[in-house]
Amino acid sequence: MSVSTTVARFDTLALDCGQRLAPVQVAYETYGELNTQRSNAILILHAFSGDAHAAGISAETGKPGWWDNMIGPGKAFDTRCYYVISSNVLGGCSGTTGPSSIDPGTGSPYGSNFPPVSIADMVRLQQLLTESLGISRLLCVSGGSMGGMQALQWAASYPDKVASVIPIATTHRHSAQQIAFNEVGRQAILADPDFNRGDFYGGKYPERGLAVARMVGHITYMSDGSMREKFGRRRRKSSGESDLFEVESYLRYRGGQFVSRFDANSYLVISRAMDTFDMTADCETLEDCFTRGDTRFLVLSFTSDWLYPSYQSQEIVRALRSRNRDVAYIELESNYGHDAFLLEAGEQTSLIRGFLENTFQRLAA
Amino acid sequence: MSVSTTVARFDTLALDCGQRLAPVQVAYETYGELNTQRSNAILILHAFSGDAHAAGISAETGKPGWWDNMIGPGKAFDTRCYYVISSNVLGGCSGTTGPSSIDPGTGSPYGSNFPPVSIADMVRLQQLLTESLGISRLLCVSGGSMGGMQALQWAASYPDKVASVIPIATTHRHSAQQIAFNEVGRQAILADPDFNRGDFYGGKYPERGLAVARMVGHITYMSDGSMREKFGRRRRKSSGESDLFEVESYLRYRGGQFVSRFDANSYLVISRAMDTFDMTADCETLEDCFTRGDTRFLVLSFTSDWLYPSYQSQEIVRALRSRNRDVAYIELESNYGHDAFLLEAGEQTSLIRGFLENTFQRLAA
Repeated sequence: MSVSTTVARFDTLALDCGQRLAPVQVAYETYGELNTQRSNAILILHAFSGDAHAAGISAETGKPGWWDNMIGPGKAFDTRCYYVISSNVLGGCSGTTGPSSIDPGTGSPYGSNFPPVSIADMVRLQQLLTESLGISRLLCVSGGSMGGMQALQWAASYPDKVASVIPIATTHRHSAQQIAFNEVGRQAILADPDFNRGDFYGGKYPERGLAVARMVGHITYMSDGSMREKFGRRRRKSSGESDLFEVESYLRYRGGQFVSRFDANSYLVISRAMDTFDMTADCETLEDCFTRGDTRFLVLSFTSDWLYPSYQSQEIVRALRSRNRDVAYIELESNYGHDAFLLEAGEQTSLIRGFLENTFQRLAA
Repeated sequence: MSVSTTVARFDTLALDCGQRLAPVQVAYETYGELNTQRSNAILILHAFSGDAHAAGISAETGKPGWWDNMIGPGKAFDTRCYYVISSNVLGGCSGTTGPSSIDPGTGSPYGSNFPPVSIADMVRLQQLLTESLGISRLLCVSGGSMGGMQALQWAASYPDKVASVIPIATTHRHSAQQIAFNEVGRQAILADPDFNRGDFYGGKYPERGLAVARMVGHITYMSDGSMREKFGRRRRKSSGESDLFEVESYLRYRGGQFVSRFDANSYLVISRAMDTFDMTADCETLEDCFTRGDTRFLVLSFTSDWLYPSYQSQEIVRALRSRNRDVAYIELESNYGHDAFLLEAGEQTSLIRGFLENTFQRLAA
């Protein structure tokens, strides 16, 4: 199916930092049809560097969406039954207001003037979007990694507006190690003289720093085992330089590819939003975040994911169970590391499909 | 005890790459006394960024050595019984010939002209050193991480010259993930415009790239758990910028500190030596590397070391056992990650002390 990204515009959005973005816009795609009761809408939220194009073939680029193996007719998020909305995040660079957007106050890109945004700010904008689409209650909110953080925040911010949440390979707050990896990426960008304190639009882009940042990311998304399988110690013939290890040329390639589609300021803003995300900051304990509403939860993690290890998902499950919330948790076997949430469609599909059917039937009953 | 680093000079050293370094020098320290039989000498080899100053208080800097908790009177490597030699590595920047040394052919620092060196080259230079000190057979060679690689290479290159080896938290060849982390560090350095293709001596040093490289390293040296204990999500008041996470200011501090004592070209040369180290390259199998000699082995690894995971030590142990070699293996409980080999003196001490005593008695018998 050929799909196009749409943009919704709103007059203003109040941010946690106290500032406002006015106007603000959000890029999104939809798949499937909203039923007459408006009860079959599912919101899908992407990870750090994703965009609104989650499924189908993009009419603009011809490329499949980042979760095309999970969203579509007969898939985990079955578009024959459900109306799926995929929203890009605030602070990004793929159609939603972010540092590269024009600041109406100056007529130039925000650059270093873009305010810090939070995961809750992202969710607030998504709520404006779903409301504008005529949906007062979502059947489900789901996403992996940072998408899972947003899904959890939905349950905390709008417990009456979301019937179920599927947070995958995620956490309610970053560990020191997760912050540390993000910080290395940020420092690589800041070290690039072309970064120019964030005001590089119209000049040279800090491509070298951004590429290094992305390389670090890619290592953390894979597992020791999946890297061994994919690359081992194999060499690749290279011209000029002595033969590189395949893993080296892979990382260089992916780093170089990334700079053509991602904005260095968005990297800083979004990674900071992840690091400062802490569901216990507004509540006494994590348990207290889940006192309201009757949202159901399906929590998934993967055995080889060392970036978002299973114990972090289990912390969420423990908090929910202690409040007698309806929560199922599965740790899925996988060798793919953190990337598993993008790659392991098989087992995720059967779990998610059953959970959604059950949730839908309960609501109808 | 106050100690000083000494330098030994040799006319020439043939390298695996086919080139020669002439002359070549190596920085080293010694602790304790060589006995009259010259049978109590132990060679200690440092990790990636270490130097010859392993024990005691440096007469130059006033600082303790990097393994001062392990080397000294009554310690694991007991200087009341043993003569301990600590050698700096070839390619480094702490007194041994490396990229910042003067190339006698040009009168300027080698810089980008410094030849690639191997772990076996480092060991060859150490053998010149120990020979010049009048030692024909070492009681033991030991080191952690890259020091462990050198120790293993000693057993393969000079099986008759080393009675025992204690490789700690190491591997006989890097995995794709280990290569990948090194490659990110290299790319961070190469991305720094001040790197100037390696010929930066006399100009600005590529400090920003080198600092980012070091930050990546520090994350891999710690464990998720030790970072949580040490930093958690605590913030540190900072001037100007919004409050940083403690882990961020720690990484920035350590990165900044590193550039004052380490050379960017040494980073490239030594990390490449680690990545290309592969004991199976010269043998059919790892087992075949250990057919000669009667060197005894004590192999140590640490539970939370995810950079050099225990399975890598176990591969070595399996190969040695399959050749009926005298090998003991202990996986030590620790929360410190790869840094454990520097920090967990207690349990290492009892194991190493007994192993050395036993080896010494067997030789005397």
